[in-house]
Amino acid sequence: MTKQTIGAVIFPGFEMLDYYGPLEIFCVHNDVFEIRAVGELTDPVHASSGPATAPDDTFADEVHYDILLVPGGRGVRTEMHSPSFLTWLNAASNQATLVLSVCTGSLLLAKAELLDGRNATTNKNAFDWVFENAPNVNWQPNARWVEDGKFVTSSGVSAGIDMAVYVTEKLLGKPAADHATFVCEYMPNTDPNNDPFSILKD
Amino acid sequence: MTKQTIGAVIFPGFEMLDYYGPLEIFCVHNDVFEIRAVGELTDPVHASSGPATAPDDTFADEVHYDILLVPGGRGVRTEMHSPSFLTWLNAASNQATLVLSVCTGSLLLAKAELLDGRNATTNKNAFDWVFENAPNVNWQPNARWVEDGKFVTSSGVSAGIDMAVYVTEKLLGKPAADHATFVCEYMPNTDPNNDPFSILKD
Repeated sequence: MTKQTIGAVIFPGFEMLDYYGPLEIFCVHNDVFEIRAVGELTDPVHASSGPATAPDDTFADEVHYDILLVPGGRGVRTEMHSPSFLTWLNAASNQATLVLSVCTGSLLLAKAELLDGRNATTNKNAFDWVFENAPNVNWQPNARWVEDGKFVTSSGVSAGIDMAVYVTEKLLGKPAADHATFVCEYMPNTDPNNDPFSILKD
Repeated sequence: MTKQTIGAVIFPGFEMLDYYGPLEIFCVHNDVFEIRAVGELTDPVHASSGPATAPDDTFADEVHYDILLVPGGRGVRTEMHSPSFLTWLNAASNQATLVLSVCTGSLLLAKAELLDGRNATTNKNAFDWVFENAPNVNWQPNARWVEDGKFVTSSGVSAGIDMAVYVTEKLLGKPAADHATFVCEYMPNTDPNNDPFSILKD
Protein backbone atom coordinates (compact mmCIF):
# COMPACT_ATOMS: atom_id res chain seq x y z
CA MET A 1 0.00 0.00 0.00
CA THR A 2 1.25 3.53 -0.70
CA LYS A 3 2.33 5.57 2.31
CA GLN A 4 -0.63 7.01 4.24
CA THR A 5 -0.15 10.24 6.14
CA ILE A 6 -2.15 10.41 9.36
CA GLY A 7 -3.00 13.90 10.61
CA ALA A 8 -3.55 13.40 14.33
CA VAL A 9 -5.28 16.50 15.64
CA ILE A 10 -4.34 18.05 18.98
CA PHE A 11 -6.07 20.82 20.92
CA PRO A 12 -5.81 21.95 24.55
CA GLY A 13 -7.56 19.42 26.79
CA PHE A 14 -7.56 16.51 24.33
CA GLU A 15 -7.85 13.07 25.94
CA MET A 16 -4.54 11.19 26.08
CA LEU A 17 -5.66 7.64 25.34
CA ASP A 18 -8.16 8.74 22.65
CA TYR A 19 -5.15 9.97 20.78
CA TYR A 20 -2.21 7.73 21.64
CA GLY A 21 -4.16 4.45 21.73
CA PRO A 22 -4.96 4.42 17.99
CA LEU A 23 -1.56 5.93 17.14
CA GLU A 24 0.17 3.04 18.91
CA ILE A 25 -1.65 0.51 16.72
CA PHE A 26 -0.85 2.47 13.56
CA CYS A 27 2.81 3.03 14.46
CA VAL A 28 3.50 -0.71 14.35
CA HIS A 29 3.18 -0.39 10.56
CA ASN A 30 5.34 2.70 10.22
CA ASP A 31 6.34 1.51 6.77
CA VAL A 32 2.80 2.48 5.69
CA PHE A 33 1.56 5.01 8.23
CA GLU A 34 3.36 8.31 8.78
CA ILE A 35 1.96 9.96 11.90
CA ARG A 36 1.99 13.75 12.20
CA ALA A 37 0.57 15.75 15.10
CA VAL A 38 -1.35 18.75 13.77
CA GLY A 39 -2.41 21.69 15.91
CA GLU A 40 -3.81 25.15 15.30
CA LEU A 41 -0.65 26.89 16.54
CA THR A 42 3.02 25.98 16.98
CA ASP A 43 3.04 25.71 20.78
CA PRO A 44 2.80 22.31 22.50
CA VAL A 45 -0.70 21.74 23.91
CA HIS A 46 -1.43 19.98 27.17
CA ALA A 47 -3.73 16.97 27.18
CA SER A 48 -6.56 16.89 29.72
CA SER A 49 -4.67 16.54 33.05
CA GLY A 50 -1.63 15.31 31.13
CA PRO A 51 1.60 16.24 29.36
CA ALA A 52 1.86 18.53 26.34
CA THR A 53 2.23 17.26 22.78
CA ALA A 54 4.16 19.36 20.26
CA PRO A 55 2.64 19.77 16.79
CA ASP A 56 4.59 18.61 13.75
CA ASP A 57 2.36 20.75 11.52
CA THR A 58 -0.02 23.64 12.07
CA PHE A 59 -3.36 24.37 10.40
CA ALA A 60 -1.67 27.13 8.39
CA ASP A 61 0.65 24.57 6.77
CA GLU A 62 -2.35 23.23 4.85
CA VAL A 63 -0.94 19.71 4.71
CA HIS A 64 -3.07 17.12 2.89
CA TYR A 65 -3.65 14.12 5.16
CA ASP A 66 -4.89 10.77 3.88
CA ILE A 67 -6.31 9.88 7.28
CA LEU A 68 -7.46 12.19 10.08
CA LEU A 69 -7.65 11.21 13.75
CA VAL A 70 -9.81 13.40 16.01
CA PRO A 71 -9.73 12.69 19.76
CA GLY A 72 -12.24 13.85 22.35
CA GLY A 73 -11.65 15.19 25.83
CA ARG A 74 -12.58 18.12 28.01
CA GLY A 75 -11.24 20.54 25.39
CA VAL A 76 -14.07 19.60 23.01
CA ARG A 77 -16.28 22.01 24.96
CA THR A 78 -14.09 24.87 23.72
CA GLU A 79 -13.21 23.72 20.19
CA MET A 80 -16.87 22.96 19.35
CA HIS A 81 -17.43 26.73 19.40
CA SER A 82 -14.23 27.69 17.54
CA PRO A 83 -14.84 28.80 13.93
CA SER A 84 -11.14 28.48 13.04
CA PHE A 85 -10.94 24.92 14.40
CA LEU A 86 -14.17 23.77 12.75
CA THR A 87 -13.37 25.41 9.40
CA TRP A 88 -10.00 23.63 9.28
CA LEU A 89 -11.57 20.32 10.37
CA ASN A 90 -14.21 20.53 7.66
CA ALA A 91 -11.65 21.24 4.93
CA ALA A 92 -9.14 18.61 6.11
CA SER A 93 -11.90 15.98 6.41
CA ASN A 94 -13.13 16.70 2.92
CA GLN A 95 -9.60 16.12 1.60
CA ALA A 96 -9.02 12.91 3.58
CA THR A 97 -10.02 9.43 2.45
CA LEU A 98 -10.68 8.26 6.00
CA VAL A 99 -11.75 10.29 9.05
CA LEU A 100 -11.51 8.66 12.48
CA SER A 101 -12.79 9.96 15.80
CA VAL A 102 -12.65 8.69 19.36
CA CYS A 103 -15.01 9.54 22.21
CA THR A 104 -16.45 13.06 21.93
CA GLY A 105 -14.22 13.75 18.93
CA SER A 106 -17.32 12.83 16.91
CA LEU A 107 -19.07 15.91 18.28
CA LEU A 108 -16.33 18.03 16.71
CA LEU A 109 -16.98 16.29 13.37
CA ALA A 110 -20.71 16.95 13.82
CA LYS A 111 -20.11 20.61 14.64
CA ALA A 112 -17.96 20.84 11.50
CA GLU A 113 -21.11 19.79 9.58
CA LEU A 114 -19.66 16.44 8.52
CA LEU A 115 -22.03 13.94 10.17
CA ASP A 116 -25.59 15.17 9.58
CA GLY A 117 -27.77 12.21 8.57
CA ARG A 118 -24.94 9.74 9.20
CA ASN A 119 -24.62 6.95 11.75
CA ALA A 120 -22.00 7.66 14.40
CA THR A 121 -21.17 6.99 18.04
CA THR A 122 -19.42 8.59 21.01
CA ASN A 123 -18.58 7.97 24.67
CA LYS A 124 -21.68 6.53 26.32
CA ASN A 125 -21.04 8.62 29.45
CA ALA A 126 -21.45 11.76 27.35
CA PHE A 127 -24.14 10.39 25.05
CA ASP A 128 -27.05 12.62 26.09
CA TRP A 129 -24.93 15.76 26.01
CA VAL A 130 -23.57 14.92 22.56
CA PHE A 131 -27.07 14.13 21.25
CA GLU A 132 -28.41 17.47 22.51
CA ASN A 133 -25.59 19.35 20.82
CA ALA A 134 -25.87 17.59 17.45
CA PRO A 135 -29.40 16.22 17.04
CA ASN A 136 -29.14 15.67 13.28
CA VAL A 137 -26.70 12.76 13.60
CA ASN A 138 -28.00 9.18 13.98
CA TRP A 139 -26.16 8.55 17.25
CA GLN A 140 -25.83 4.84 18.01
CA PRO A 141 -26.26 3.91 21.71
CA ASN A 142 -24.83 0.38 21.28
CA ALA A 143 -21.60 0.38 19.29
CA ARG A 144 -17.92 -0.02 20.05
CA TRP A 145 -17.40 1.83 16.77
CA VAL A 146 -19.51 2.82 13.74
CA GLU A 147 -18.44 3.05 10.08
CA ASP A 148 -20.45 5.22 7.70
CA GLY A 149 -18.76 6.03 4.42
CA LYS A 150 -15.32 7.42 5.12
CA PHE A 151 -16.15 8.22 8.76
CA VAL A 152 -15.29 5.73 11.52
CA THR A 153 -16.38 7.02 14.93
CA SER A 154 -15.63 5.09 18.10
CA SER A 155 -17.02 5.00 21.59
CA GLY A 156 -15.12 6.24 24.65
CA VAL A 157 -11.36 6.44 25.17
CA SER A 158 -10.11 2.81 24.97
CA ALA A 159 -12.59 2.02 22.17
CA GLY A 160 -10.30 3.95 19.84
CA ILE A 161 -7.73 1.15 20.11
CA ASP A 162 -10.27 -1.41 18.86
CA MET A 163 -11.32 0.95 16.08
CA ALA A 164 -7.68 1.34 15.00
CA VAL A 165 -7.26 -2.44 14.91
CA TYR A 166 -10.33 -2.59 12.65
CA VAL A 167 -8.98 0.15 10.37
CA THR A 168 -5.61 -1.62 10.17
CA GLU A 169 -7.37 -4.83 9.11
CA LYS A 170 -9.50 -2.91 6.61
CA LEU A 171 -6.48 -1.26 5.00
CA LEU A 172 -3.69 -3.81 5.44
CA GLY A 173 -5.44 -7.13 6.09
CA LYS A 174 -5.90 -9.40 9.10
CA PRO A 175 -2.29 -10.61 9.44
CA ALA A 176 -1.15 -6.97 9.74
CA ALA A 177 -3.82 -6.22 12.35
CA ASP A 178 -2.90 -9.39 14.26
CA HIS A 179 0.76 -8.41 14.20
CA ALA A 180 -0.05 -4.99 15.66
CA THR A 181 -2.07 -6.44 18.55
CA PHE A 182 0.61 -9.09 19.21
CA VAL A 183 3.36 -6.47 19.41
CA CYS A 184 1.20 -4.35 21.73
CA GLU A 185 0.16 -7.43 23.78
CA TYR A 186 -3.42 -6.28 23.30
CA MET A 187 -6.55 -8.47 23.20
CA PRO A 188 -8.84 -6.49 20.89
CA ASN A 189 -12.61 -6.37 20.87
CA THR A 190 -13.16 -7.17 17.19
CA ASP A 191 -16.98 -6.91 17.14
CA PRO A 192 -18.29 -3.36 16.61
CA ASN A 193 -21.65 -4.43 18.09
CA ASN A 194 -20.10 -5.78 21.30
CA ASP A 195 -20.32 -2.64 23.42
CA PRO A 196 -19.79 -3.38 27.12
CA PHE A 197 -20.80 0.21 27.87
CA SER A 198 -23.96 0.21 25.74
CA ILE A 199 -26.83 2.41 26.87
CA LEU A 200 -29.33 0.71 24.59
CA LYS A 201 -32.75 0.91 26.23
CA ASP A 202 -34.50 -2.47 26.34
CA MET B 1 -5.10 10.61 50.16
CA THR B 2 -2.51 13.37 49.91
CA LYS B 3 -1.62 14.56 46.43
CA GLN B 4 0.77 12.20 44.63
CA THR B 5 3.12 13.62 42.03
CA ILE B 6 3.79 11.26 39.13
CA GLY B 7 7.08 11.77 37.29
CA ALA B 8 6.40 10.27 33.87
CA VAL B 9 9.77 9.83 32.16
CA ILE B 10 10.24 10.61 28.47
CA PHE B 11 13.21 9.89 26.22
CA PRO B 12 13.61 9.83 22.43
CA GLY B 13 11.92 6.72 21.03
CA PHE B 14 9.69 5.98 24.03
CA GLU B 15 6.60 3.87 23.26
CA MET B 16 3.39 5.91 23.09
CA LEU B 17 0.94 3.54 24.74
CA ASP B 18 3.42 2.40 27.41
CA TYR B 19 3.32 5.99 28.57
CA TYR B 20 -0.11 7.38 27.83
CA GLY B 21 -2.09 4.24 28.70
CA PRO B 22 -1.25 4.32 32.43
CA LEU B 23 -1.41 8.13 32.50
CA GLU B 24 -4.99 8.00 31.17
CA ILE B 25 -6.05 5.78 34.07
CA PHE B 26 -4.30 8.01 36.62
CA CYS B 27 -5.64 11.27 35.14
CA VAL B 28 -9.23 10.26 35.95
CA HIS B 29 -8.31 10.93 39.59
CA ASN B 30 -6.57 14.24 38.97
CA ASP B 31 -7.62 15.35 42.46
CA VAL B 32 -4.99 12.90 43.76
CA PHE B 33 -2.52 12.38 40.90
CA GLU B 34 -0.56 15.26 39.42
CA ILE B 35 1.14 14.10 36.24
CA ARG B 36 4.39 15.71 35.13
CA ALA B 37 6.43 14.74 32.08
CA VAL B 38 10.12 14.65 32.96
CA GLY B 39 12.91 14.55 30.41
CA GLU B 40 16.66 14.97 30.43
CA LEU B 41 16.53 18.23 28.44
CA THR B 42 13.97 20.94 27.74
CA ASP B 43 13.20 20.02 24.12
CA PRO B 44 10.14 17.95 23.21
CA VAL B 45 11.10 14.35 22.43
CA HIS B 46 9.48 12.23 19.75
CA ALA B 47 7.94 8.91 20.68
CA SER B 48 8.85 5.85 18.60
CA SER B 49 7.22 6.62 15.22
CA GLY B 50 4.97 9.17 16.93
CA PRO B 51 4.50 12.78 18.04
CA ALA B 52 6.78 14.65 20.43
CA THR B 53 5.96 15.17 24.10
CA ALA B 54 7.22 18.33 25.83
CA PRO B 55 8.73 17.93 29.30
CA ASP B 56 7.21 19.78 32.24
CA ASP B 57 10.43 19.25 34.23
CA THR B 58 14.00 18.32 33.38
CA PHE B 59 16.40 16.07 35.29
CA ALA B 60 18.28 19.19 36.41
CA ASP B 61 15.17 20.46 38.23
CA GLU B 62 15.66 17.65 40.78
CA VAL B 63 11.94 17.38 41.48
CA HIS B 64 10.92 14.78 44.07
CA TYR B 65 8.27 12.47 42.60
CA ASP B 66 6.11 10.20 44.72
CA ILE B 67 5.55 7.84 41.80
CA LEU B 68 7.75 7.24 38.75
CA LEU B 69 6.50 5.85 35.44
CA VAL B 70 9.13 4.43 33.07
CA PRO B 71 7.98 3.39 29.57
CA GLY B 72 9.83 1.15 27.15
CA GLY B 73 10.27 1.50 23.42
CA ARG B 74 12.97 1.50 20.79
CA GLY B 75 14.80 4.29 22.65
CA VAL B 76 15.62 1.92 25.51
CA ARG B 77 18.49 0.63 23.38
CA THR B 78 20.14 4.05 23.68
CA GLU B 79 19.18 5.07 27.23
CA MET B 80 20.34 1.72 28.69
CA HIS B 81 23.89 2.87 27.91
CA SER B 82 23.47 6.49 29.07
CA PRO B 83 25.19 7.21 32.41
CA SER B 84 23.29 10.50 32.87
CA PHE B 85 19.91 8.82 32.29
CA LEU B 86 20.65 5.85 34.56
CA THR B 87 22.13 7.99 37.34
CA TRP B 88 19.02 10.17 37.41
CA LEU B 89 16.72 7.14 37.26
CA ASN B 90 18.51 5.50 40.18
CA ALA B 91 18.27 8.65 42.33
CA ALA B 92 14.65 9.42 41.43
CA SER B 93 13.61 5.80 42.07
CA ASN B 94 15.28 5.80 45.45
CA GLN B 95 13.28 8.91 46.40
CA ALA B 96 9.94 7.58 45.10
CA THR B 97 7.52 5.43 47.07
CA LEU B 98 6.35 3.58 43.96
CA VAL B 99 8.23 2.88 40.72
CA LEU B 100 6.25 1.65 37.71
CA SER B 101 7.55 0.38 34.39
CA VAL B 102 5.91 -0.82 31.20
CA CYS B 103 7.39 -3.13 28.58
CA THR B 104 11.17 -2.80 28.27
CA GLY B 105 11.12 0.12 30.74
CA SER B 106 12.02 -2.56 33.29
CA LEU B 107 15.37 -3.05 31.54
CA LEU B 108 16.14 0.61 32.25
CA LEU B 109 15.36 0.01 35.94
CA ALA B 110 17.62 -3.07 35.84
CA LYS B 111 20.43 -1.12 34.18
CA ALA B 112 20.02 1.55 36.89
CA GLU B 113 20.85 -1.25 39.39
CA LEU B 114 17.39 -1.23 40.94
CA LEU B 115 16.09 -4.74 40.19
CA ASP B 116 18.92 -7.19 40.97
CA GLY B 117 17.47 -10.17 42.86
CA ARG B 118 13.91 -8.91 42.42
CA ASN B 119 10.99 -10.41 40.51
CA ALA B 120 10.04 -8.37 37.44
CA THR B 121 8.60 -8.73 33.96
CA THR B 122 8.78 -7.13 30.52
CA ASN B 123 7.36 -7.47 26.99
CA LYS B 124 7.34 -11.15 26.11
CA ASN B 125 8.46 -10.35 22.53
CA ALA B 126 11.66 -8.88 23.96
CA PHE B 127 12.04 -11.34 26.84
CA ASP B 128 15.21 -13.13 25.73
CA TRP B 129 16.96 -9.87 24.86
CA VAL B 130 16.04 -8.32 28.20
CA PHE B 131 17.18 -11.44 30.09
CA GLU B 132 20.55 -11.44 28.33
CA ASN B 133 21.08 -7.77 29.19
CA ALA B 134 20.12 -8.07 32.86
CA PRO B 135 20.64 -11.69 34.01
CA ASN B 136 20.53 -10.88 37.75
CA VAL B 137 16.80 -10.08 37.74
CA ASN B 138 14.23 -12.86 38.31
CA TRP B 139 12.39 -12.23 35.03
CA GLN B 140 8.90 -13.74 35.06
CA PRO B 141 7.81 -15.31 31.74
CA ASN B 142 4.12 -15.52 32.73
CA ALA B 143 2.85 -12.26 34.22
CA ARG B 144 0.68 -9.37 33.09
CA TRP B 145 2.48 -7.41 35.81
CA VAL B 146 4.73 -8.17 38.80
CA GLU B 147 4.92 -6.35 42.14
CA ASP B 148 8.07 -6.65 44.25
CA GLY B 149 8.41 -4.10 47.03
CA LYS B 150 7.89 -0.63 45.60
CA PHE B 151 8.51 -1.81 42.02
CA VAL B 152 5.59 -2.74 39.78
CA THR B 153 6.77 -3.86 36.33
CA SER B 154 4.33 -4.73 33.58
CA SER B 155 4.45 -6.74 30.41
CA GLY B 156 4.23 -5.19 26.92
CA VAL B 157 2.57 -1.93 25.90
CA SER B 158 -1.14 -2.37 26.70
CA ALA B 159 -0.31 -4.29 29.91
CA GLY B 160 0.60 -0.94 31.45
CA ILE B 161 -3.08 0.01 31.45
CA ASP B 162 -3.95 -3.05 33.53
CA MET B 163 -1.04 -2.35 35.85
CA ALA B 164 -2.27 1.25 36.34
CA VAL B 165 -5.76 -0.02 37.18
CA TYR B 166 -4.15 -2.28 39.82
CA VAL B 167 -2.09 0.59 41.25
CA THR B 168 -5.20 2.80 41.39
CA GLU B 169 -7.04 0.09 43.33
CA LYS B 170 -4.04 -0.39 45.63
CA LEU B 171 -3.80 3.32 46.44
CA LEU B 172 -7.40 4.54 46.20
CA GLY B 173 -9.58 1.41 46.50
CA LYS B 174 -11.72 -0.63 44.13
CA PRO B 175 -14.51 1.92 43.57
CA ALA B 176 -11.91 4.45 42.38
CA ALA B 177 -10.35 1.90 40.02
CA ASP B 178 -13.79 0.89 38.73
CA HIS B 179 -14.64 4.53 38.11
CA ALA B 180 -11.46 5.00 36.06
CA THR B 181 -12.16 1.98 33.85
CA PHE B 182 -15.81 3.03 33.43
CA VAL B 183 -14.85 6.54 32.31
CA CYS B 184 -12.28 5.07 29.89
CA GLU B 185 -14.75 2.38 28.71
CA TYR B 186 -12.01 -0.15 29.40
CA MET B 187 -12.45 -3.82 30.37
CA PRO B 188 -9.34 -4.46 32.47
CA ASN B 189 -7.46 -7.69 32.96
CA THR B 190 -7.41 -7.73 36.78
CA ASP B 191 -5.40 -10.94 37.27
CA PRO B 192 -1.62 -10.42 37.18
CA ASN B 193 -1.16 -14.14 36.42
CA ASN B 194 -3.49 -14.06 33.41
CA ASP B 195 -0.92 -13.35 30.71
CA PRO B 196 -2.30 -14.00 27.21
CA PHE B 197 1.22 -13.48 25.85
CA SER B 198 2.98 -15.77 28.33
CA ILE B 199 6.10 -17.57 27.13
CA LEU B 200 6.09 -20.00 30.04
CA LYS B 201 7.65 -23.24 28.88
CA ASP B 202 5.51 -26.29 29.74
